[in-house]
Amino acid sequence: MSRRALLVSIFCICLSVAPVGNHVIAEEQPLYGYSAESSQAERQWEEKLRAIPSPENLRAYMKLLSAHPHHVGSPYDKQNADWILGKFKEFGLDANIEQFDVLFPTPKERAVELVEGGPKFVAKLQEPAVAVDPTSGQQSEQLPTYNAYSIDGDVTAELVYVNYGVPEDYEQLERMGVSVKGKIVMARYFHSWRGIKPKVAAEHGAVGCLIYSDPHEDGFVQGGTFPAGPYRPLDGVQRGSVADMPLYPGDPLTPGVGATKGAKRLKVEEAPTITKIPVLPISYGDAQPLLAALGGRVAPESWRGGLGITYHLGPGPAKVHLKVKSNWEIKPIYDVIGKIPGSVYPDEWVIRGNHHDGWVNGAEDPIAGQIAILEEARALGELLKAGWKPKRTIIYCAWDGEEPGLLGSTEWAEQHYDELRAHAVAYVNSDSNGRGYFEVEGSHTLEKFSNDVARDVTDPETKLSVWKRDQLHEIAEAKTAEKREEIRKRADLRIPALGSGSDYTAFLQHDGVASLNFGFGGEDQGGIYHSIYDDFYWFSHFSDTEFVYGRALAQAGGTAMMRLADADLLPFEFGDFADTVQMYLKELKALAQKSQDDIRERNREIEEGVFQATNDPSKPLVPPLSETVPPHLNFAPMENAVDTLNRSAAEYRNAVEQINAKGSATPSAASLAEVNKLLIESERRLTNAEGLPNRSWFKHQLYAPGFYTGYEVKTVPAVREAIELKHWKQADEAIVVVARVLESEAALISSAAQKLAVDK
Amino acid sequence: MSRRALLVSIFCICLSVAPVGNHVIAEEQPLYGYSAESSQAERQWEEKLRAIPSPENLRAYMKLLSAHPHHVGSPYDKQNADWILGKFKEFGLDANIEQFDVLFPTPKERAVELVEGGPKFVAKLQEPAVAVDPTSGQQSEQLPTYNAYSIDGDVTAELVYVNYGVPEDYEQLERMGVSVKGKIVMARYFHSWRGIKPKVAAEHGAVGCLIYSDPHEDGFVQGGTFPAGPYRPLDGVQRGSVADMPLYPGDPLTPGVGATKGAKRLKVEEAPTITKIPVLPISYGDAQPLLAALGGRVAPESWRGGLGITYHLGPGPAKVHLKVKSNWEIKPIYDVIGKIPGSVYPDEWVIRGNHHDGWVNGAEDPIAGQIAILEEARALGELLKAGWKPKRTIIYCAWDGEEPGLLGSTEWAEQHYDELRAHAVAYVNSDSNGRGYFEVEGSHTLEKFSNDVARDVTDPETKLSVWKRDQLHEIAEAKTAEKREEIRKRADLRIPALGSGSDYTAFLQHDGVASLNFGFGGEDQGGIYHSIYDDFYWFSHFSDTEFVYGRALAQAGGTAMMRLADADLLPFEFGDFADTVQMYLKELKALAQKSQDDIRERNREIEEGVFQATNDPSKPLVPPLSETVPPHLNFAPMENAVDTLNRSAAEYRNAVEQINAKGSATPSAASLAEVNKLLIESERRLTNAEGLPNRSWFKHQLYAPGFYTGYEVKTVPAVREAIELKHWKQADEAIVVVARVLESEAALISSAAQKLAVDK
Repeated sequence: MSRRALLVSIFCICLSVAPVGNHVIAEEQPLYGYSAESSQAERQWEEKLRAIPSPENLRAYMKLLSAHPHHVGSPYDKQNADWILGKFKEFGLDANIEQFDVLFPTPKERAVELVEGGPKFVAKLQEPAVAVDPTSGQQSEQLPTYNAYSIDGDVTAELVYVNYGVPEDYEQLERMGVSVKGKIVMARYFHSWRGIKPKVAAEHGAVGCLIYSDPHEDGFVQGGTFPAGPYRPLDGVQRGSVADMPLYPGDPLTPGVGATKGAKRLKVEEAPTITKIPVLPISYGDAQPLLAALGGRVAPESWRGGLGITYHLGPGPAKVHLKVKSNWEIKPIYDVIGKIPGSVYPDEWVIRGNHHDGWVNGAEDPIAGQIAILEEARALGELLKAGWKPKRTIIYCAWDGEEPGLLGSTEWAEQHYDELRAHAVAYVNSDSNGRGYFEVEGSHTLEKFSNDVARDVTDPETKLSVWKRDQLHEIAEAKTAEKREEIRKRADLRIPALGSGSDYTAFLQHDGVASLNFGFGGEDQGGIYHSIYDDFYWFSHFSDTEFVYGRALAQAGGTAMMRLADADLLPFEFGDFADTVQMYLKELKALAQKSQDDIRERNREIEEGVFQATNDPSKPLVPPLSETVPPHLNFAPMENAVDTLNRSAAEYRNAVEQINAKGSATPSAASLAEVNKLLIESERRLTNAEGLPNRSWFKHQLYAPGFYTGYEVKTVPAVREAIELKHWKQADEAIVVVARVLESEAALISSAAQKLAVDK
Repeated sequence: MSRRALLVSIFCICLSVAPVGNHVIAEEQPLYGYSAESSQAERQWEEKLRAIPSPENLRAYMKLLSAHPHHVGSPYDKQNADWILGKFKEFGLDANIEQFDVLFPTPKERAVELVEGGPKFVAKLQEPAVAVDPTSGQQSEQLPTYNAYSIDGDVTAELVYVNYGVPEDYEQLERMGVSVKGKIVMARYFHSWRGIKPKVAAEHGAVGCLIYSDPHEDGFVQGGTFPAGPYRPLDGVQRGSVADMPLYPGDPLTPGVGATKGAKRLKVEEAPTITKIPVLPISYGDAQPLLAALGGRVAPESWRGGLGITYHLGPGPAKVHLKVKSNWEIKPIYDVIGKIPGSVYPDEWVIRGNHHDGWVNGAEDPIAGQIAILEEARALGELLKAGWKPKRTIIYCAWDGEEPGLLGSTEWAEQHYDELRAHAVAYVNSDSNGRGYFEVEGSHTLEKFSNDVARDVTDPETKLSVWKRDQLHEIAEAKTAEKREEIRKRADLRIPALGSGSDYTAFLQHDGVASLNFGFGGEDQGGIYHSIYDDFYWFSHFSDTEFVYGRALAQAGGTAMMRLADADLLPFEFGDFADTVQMYLKELKALAQKSQDDIRERNREIEEGVFQATNDPSKPLVPPLSETVPPHLNFAPMENAVDTLNRSAAEYRNAVEQINAKGSATPSAASLAEVNKLLIESERRLTNAEGLPNRSWFKHQLYAPGFYTGYEVKTVPAVREAIELKHWKQADEAIVVVARVLESEAALISSAAQKLAVDK
């Protein structure tokens, strides 16, 4: 932290107040990675860029792009791709469509029935049109409610309620003496990525899985339901993929390679990411009669939803018939790729993306994000016309097939793996957009960079910078005085790491490209996610109704792209990065310690007879078994690596400061080019060829979606998940692997620092 | 803690294994306050006592006592009193009925209607009979659903939902810009004593108050509803008093004096404990249409109940008509008092009580407790016949009129104030009973004593001592390793202090009699409290169905009474007491510190603009105002007093140890008598004549019900509530008063220690 204070004071030497255009900009310091001179020019261009995006355009784009259902394989999906292609070209980008051919199942037969244990009930599995909402009635064009990549199946079995259906829930079920073996489970949405629910259910022997939207999460408990309010109505259903994406995303038939016409494909029955049991999503309207027919034990307090019934666990007496059958077809997907070639470093690519396919009309998801990148592309086109020349190549991508499994981005990133490893500077993603706070997640080598971008974008509601609003929000949300202190004193706000759930995945976690994800949210609650009600009517009534947050997203995304493309020295920063890795190390040590402490304490309680003493005979619990206390892990390799990393980050920081101390003088172009090459490689160094244990597609050693969380990141995943799963030997081995990766990263940083220093 | 370890090791010298009767008792140490010899005799008598109570008798008593509604003024209330009197006499107690005449309003008119803002709706205000439950149909004998001591009123106003209706809820309403001025509030039961809800509502300008039972708390959210399960059915209503008992309990017309025939009485309209606005309790069946007709803002997450609707705050559009009119009559209440005269110290009284009146049939509340004291009285009678002679006078009390306001016990304790101040050793209360853990609360001078009693009672389910089961339960529930460590190492389990809500109140908090409250619970959840369904059918199906916890309560209560009555040296102990007071001091200092920290932090956030930055324009919040940071309080007088207290407690402990170290030798009878007199006085010393600020009826300076919690205790109330209410000057003054009381207590303890030591 003192490091930052020092940096600021040095930069303050060149403080000047320069009149720019017709208003005065207080140039507190040159942009990071820019000389004073190039910074001034860049700031002027960025100001111009941020003035361009227009709410009216954004609204018009959304209206058009969400006018019809535009899922993979639909006519409107292709039509949108062609329209975006035309727009990119019109804006002056060198654009084309890249097609892949992917496995995309669509429903042929679907049935959910209560056949025993309550009044005979046949689930509707249908979302009704709403009179005031003009696109909700396009039934012939809508995909039925389903979970893509559910295996076909026809099962009849007793029902068990499994809460969110995550591993901890099954641990609790076991203690309550409830088995799901041979049963159909009913899980509610939320608290994990949906694909985790059938995966864990199958691991525990279930034969089928229903996933329903409880009103507690995004229905009437939260507020008025659509169309009176933004929340999920009685019959609203969340569609979505249930492929095992923590194993690998993208086309299930072509792991690791682009799904081109001639690609070698797995057979459908060989694809490991297709679920092991049939799955269907249902509404709370359809779920209520099934849940109400459950008997057995009353669900634990935290398992109870908002349905206005007593939640029981079962099994039975409710017996359910579940049938799912899909058309297992190969469908084309259309990635729209638009380029602005770099004037100085054409082989250094700065990439921006958002998907264009939706589950139905998809106004919020993904069009609210897609329209922002369209306005960014238009704005950059305007700047080009005005004489701006980006140093690096800028690539705008409108991905197809994100919804079924990040298909468009993954296939593209697999297909262009070698080029991206060689050329990609960074990938900036977005995926839908809302109202509220600027939310950034991503690579910590870009933490400072993303903070700097946030300082230059204005929040539409408060007129503060989005950075300031975020900071004050974090202060308000902080649980401890220590946390508040850090937020107030640390130069940069911490950004969360990326897990999965959107198109950055293949770039970051497979290709090793430093990535960021941008979006606004937090004040835009609703319950139309992946339903027919996520449409223009809903968005323009309940979300960013004035499209001012769409403009803010275009301003943030556009600024980031320009600033990366134009920098003299790429704005990677390793102090924040090293600080973050050190924090992860601390977390891992605490986690290992906690595992020891918890097991030791539980063993003691078993010996003392705590579980017998607290067993209510009317609600008996199976006592836990004594476990071996975990061994101490050898964190030393990682501790040493983190020390090295801290030293190299300091070296690099000093080298950068030395340059700045000289005023406007910069290192030679040749030397900068060499350093930039190293910086581009810096995220690659965090990957290894072997990838993570048991899921080799994931190469990044610091960030991955949790194998049992799906969306939520597990940082230092090989170590963290080994500890969580109590695989102590694997944890010790993983520490060595991660340490090696960090040492290699530190060497690269040190080498970059030396090149900068030598040049001086 | 080391103190305890020492004590145990000294006592261990006289460990012996003595054959008693036909089984072997490991006599680890003499009972506290007993010589080795008298301890052995006492243990034998206690064993005999605990063998006597019979589940069959308990079941028969309950069936009889709960056969008809037996509220104040009902024929069956009198009939029960007479029957208990007969039983006491039959058991060999010298028994009589003491009558008081108290204000007891009963409903004349009641109405709740939705008159605007939704479909016209008239609340039923009626609990239907249930076919399987034979006493639920005694409608002509049942008191209608109402809140006793609601003022008469007839108001029509918009409705506002106020969550639990406690002060924090109004703070949140204010920030959300919702005022209850001129409105009728709808509060849900729980999270405070019910009388707090109309009190706080009136303070905020409301004109009426409805209190309803949300299914989240004790209805279908928790489990099956009566008669299928134990929880509150659709139309079940919680009756109850809403008099301002934290001001003073008992007859509203005779504060501080017994409500005898000739007592001086306030006029009804002068009685300060009658509510300021009309109040009625309603079922969730009656509440749902009213809540569903509320508009305005959606209630905050933690305010939402389980009704299966969106909870809105209002005000309106729901407009409600509320009418309450009572018969304001003076009714007789019948306390049944049974005595066993002491053979050595007839002027030292050990008192036991439980009320006999119910709101309707009252099987759980109060009969489950009442039957235990009946079996205790029978068992003591049996012992008397077998030749046992208690040293001290034992008094068993079956109170009337507890439900409307602790009437019977309060009037008796006021009427006999001087005698009780002179003679009462201790009061042991119970009030209903359930299944699960032994729950003790009370005076900390009796903490060790109550722990010792718990060590000698066996839990029916686990066959552990109820002490051991409690300890293991506390370990299971502890949130931190430190807390677990304390539970494992401290000789005695901590007992919570008494707030209010039952008949110990006047004894402890007005008369200064050391008091304990005993009961079993924690596994006996249900939702029939104060409804017509709290009856024999419910109890015998869903609570202590085998009446084995009734037996355990009789064993615990009987053991405590005997052990207090027979002790050579009264089993008061001051180490636990001093330790507890020291803990309170620490809490108070932390509370004052937190108040400073919170205000300082909030002021800082106001300056920083946190509240503007985090204000969602679709859900605006009024920003808080800056406040003066609280001054530092002068805790020194209390710190010094606590030091003195610790020293005197150690002195007393040493004196007791010295006696024990001499083996069977005991101090002279005269000397013991003198010390016992001091011990009896020890709780009196914790009171003062002035009582608490603004509620002088409450004399105890360590324990009182919170002025805004009602049931929940506020320890060191004058200081704690002054800090909570930010009355800093009053807090500083109260510290001095409390310190004086503690110094006086320490002097008494020291004097007792010296008398014991001199005698040696």
